[in-house]
Amino acid sequence: MKPTLQTRLAVEFIGTGLLVTAVIGSGIMAERLSSGNIGLALLANSIATGAALVTLILTFGPISGAHFNPVVSFANALDRGMSWPETLAYIIVQCIGGIIGTALAHAMFGLNMMTFSHHVRSGFPLILSEFVATFGLVAVISGCSKSRPSVIPFAVAAYITSAYWFTASTSFANPAVTLARLFSDTFAGIRPLDVPAFLLAQFAGGLVATLFFRWLQPLEPKSGLSGPPVRLF
Amino acid sequence: MKPTLQTRLAVEFIGTGLLVTAVIGSGIMAERLSSGNIGLALLANSIATGAALVTLILTFGPISGAHFNPVVSFANALDRGMSWPETLAYIIVQCIGGIIGTALAHAMFGLNMMTFSHHVRSGFPLILSEFVATFGLVAVISGCSKSRPSVIPFAVAAYITSAYWFTASTSFANPAVTLARLFSDTFAGIRPLDVPAFLLAQFAGGLVATLFFRWLQPLEPKSGLSGPPVRLF
Amino acid sequence: MKPTLQTRLAVEFIGTGLLVTAVIGSGIMAERLSSGNIGLALLANSIATGAALVTLILTFGPISGAHFNPVVSFANALDRGMSWPETLAYIIVQCIGGIIGTALAHAMFGLNMMTFSHHVRSGFPLILSEFVATFGLVAVISGCSKSRPSVIPFAVAAYITSAYWFTASTSFANPAVTLARLFSDTFAGIRPLDVPAFLLAQFAGGLVATLFFRWLQPLEPKSGLSGPPVRLF
Amino acid sequence: MKPTLQTRLAVEFIGTGLLVTAVIGSGIMAERLSSGNIGLALLANSIATGAALVTLILTFGPISGAHFNPVVSFANALDRGMSWPETLAYIIVQCIGGIIGTALAHAMFGLNMMTFSHHVRSGFPLILSEFVATFGLVAVISGCSKSRPSVIPFAVAAYITSAYWFTASTSFANPAVTLARLFSDTFAGIRPLDVPAFLLAQFAGGLVATLFFRWLQPLEPKSGLSGPPVRLF
Repeated sequence: MKPTLQTRLAVEFIGTGLLVTAVIGSGIMAERLSSGNIGLALLANSIATGAALVTLILTFGPISGAHFNPVVSFANALDRGMSWPETLAYIIVQCIGGIIGTALAHAMFGLNMMTFSHHVRSGFPLILSEFVATFGLVAVISGCSKSRPSVIPFAVAAYITSAYWFTASTSFANPAVTLARLFSDTFAGIRPLDVPAFLLAQFAGGLVATLFFRWLQPLEPKSGLSGPPVRLF
Repeated sequence: MKPTLQTRLAVEFIGTGLLVTAVIGSGIMAERLSSGNIGLALLANSIATGAALVTLILTFGPISGAHFNPVVSFANALDRGMSWPETLAYIIVQCIGGIIGTALAHAMFGLNMMTFSHHVRSGFPLILSEFVATFGLVAVISGCSKSRPSVIPFAVAAYITSAYWFTASTSFANPAVTLARLFSDTFAGIRPLDVPAFLLAQFAGGLVATLFFRWLQPLEPKSGLSGPPVRLF
Repeated sequence: MKPTLQTRLAVEFIGTGLLVTAVIGSGIMAERLSSGNIGLALLANSIATGAALVTLILTFGPISGAHFNPVVSFANALDRGMSWPETLAYIIVQCIGGIIGTALAHAMFGLNMMTFSHHVRSGFPLILSEFVATFGLVAVISGCSKSRPSVIPFAVAAYITSAYWFTASTSFANPAVTLARLFSDTFAGIRPLDVPAFLLAQFAGGLVATLFFRWLQPLEPKSGLSGPPVRLF
Repeated sequence: MKPTLQTRLAVEFIGTGLLVTAVIGSGIMAERLSSGNIGLALLANSIATGAALVTLILTFGPISGAHFNPVVSFANALDRGMSWPETLAYIIVQCIGGIIGTALAHAMFGLNMMTFSHHVRSGFPLILSEFVATFGLVAVISGCSKSRPSVIPFAVAAYITSAYWFTASTSFANPAVTLARLFSDTFAGIRPLDVPAFLLAQFAGGLVATLFFRWLQPLEPKSGLSGPPVRLF
């Protein structure tokens, strides 16, 4: 009854792609229509991204778990026995899917399919922001998945809409999305030079959140060494 | 216990009508009040449309399935055994209801009941946008209807609010609504000349999504040849 | 176990009061802060009103049914056997509570507790808007209450947020709130002269919706003549 | 199975901290990007705060109850047998966590970790606003916790988003958050001189709400004198 790996990878590919399309596409539309009012553009961008997330997780979660995020797959491998080869496969298709998503957004708005971004995002405050943003994201998933997994799609969406505003980096919080935004010289883009520090901060935030929740809610001892992968969502 | 066809058609008629009233009415109000800031107008329009959708699907879904969209009825016929004559009847009342909805919105705002739109919406990016928008809509419905149908009203509403922003066409994604917007020379209108390509892209997007989900989640073999129509929502 | 009439009336009083406080208070705040951009003010006002509604219905619904609206109590009397004396008592405390709510909003914003509004709201389009708005509100409640009553708080809130935008009158849709807004010379006010037509349109809309749903979903024959009042929410 | 006091205090600490980070961080971001349009800034701030609240309560509620608010812990002690020493411990970590949250928000936005606010918030209308805001918050929790506790995270979040707009003080409604905002000379700050009256009004509002709901819904007699503390959320 469990979907095949091939099916799940297809869903992670298309889901991450559509997530990036939503992030970048809504950023382009918002910037174009907001007459230079960046606050208004970010409000539209944050609402559109949250709404896309809840939709995509509800739609694809039952098939692949709707990770759409290498940090989430990584946390899943650490905590729930998703095998490392499978985790790696998830991460690879997420990254490729995200880049295709950038191209799709650009095509829908009549831009070149792929361009390097010149949007500077550097400095300690932004790195700290990505650490906090990803810590929070993994905390939300960990906290809800034990007691009330059915609300995860809503909790994740609300979290990201909020974190767009309360972090200085507008909460990328996702390495695959970060890589994909590197190829977009638009509102949502990020200069290639600034990407590595973002990725590092994101994995660090996810790791600390995982360890923190392991302390908060010790896992029951597993019945065997190689339990089956568990759906995160 | 199942509502009669007459009742269901009445509900599809009034539901599609009110949906169009919400789309066009909120567009008029938003444009009038936004002092030329189109970003603000689209934000109000997208939130009002999403909120109307969740309401209408919750209200009328238990009676007719709350398709309110020829592509959705078409996908329902392909995948779930809704008969073709019934599908055709659904589509006809949706289209008529939508046009009445335009007239009602105009009447509430003191405009002529019906005027041809001059709002140009043409070019490859917009056609591609309609394909993507409708692909996504049918994907959301297909994905949720198997595992968690009770969230469909919320997922569809969030999807459309988001897709207003991440597609260049503001996601019509609905042939009946597209026809109805042809008769409105307002914010939400579309020039008659541009309608055929929109309709084609919408049906194509819906068809591809249906086939994609048939591959992702093969249907169980039907127990008989003429199973009863199934509620989509 | 059912709350006493006294308790339920107290809750209808305070709930309608807080609803009016939310409508008028958020209107004052929105107008003050929006630098003359009425679109932005209405966006804040519509979101704040919807959020207040879902909260108030969830909080007080289990005690009194959370009508907070004479048309809703009236529809409840017509369709569900709420006795007419009780209905009248509900309507009276709703109207008084609403007016106190106006005074409370004014006090919080340092205004005179009560002033007659000069906000003109007249003409056929606005009367039609109130008819449509209240038809829709009662339709939402009727449609959801039979199949999925637990979503009513969310459906009603989303409906009103949307209807603020898609009707030309910004959807008062509530006689008690209309009376209360008569005493507020602010963003949300209504000139006393314009109130009677609003009230008439609201009751007419509610009545037509009740009859329409009686046709759509015939009630089961009652087991006796004087069944107990049923909670609408 | 019940989490230890240490675990619960850690969660109250971090949860209140992140709540304050969200309130202050989103205020800074909103003010920076809104080109002087305070209405737009408050809209972003209120949406971000509501979205953070629902997320934090869903994530941490199952562990500590997700009070994050001394008035809520106080009401819990009055009504549900949470012991006074435990209540005091909750309140202390909430206050410290909140202040750390301020520092974290400032660090993410490149500001000094802690500065006294010069934001004047005084006068009877604002004190009344805090009384009303906190009365409402405790009413929402009391009303929902008896009949439908699973909606509390959504009801509280919607309430605060709304109350930002319908009270003149933008609804602090939380002594720990008020203390923390004292250290932030930004959009969300409050001048130290104005804090005591806010705190007093908040506790008074919470107390009146608790007594009002005790009258509305008399508690069942406890089976013993020292029943176990009950989760509020």
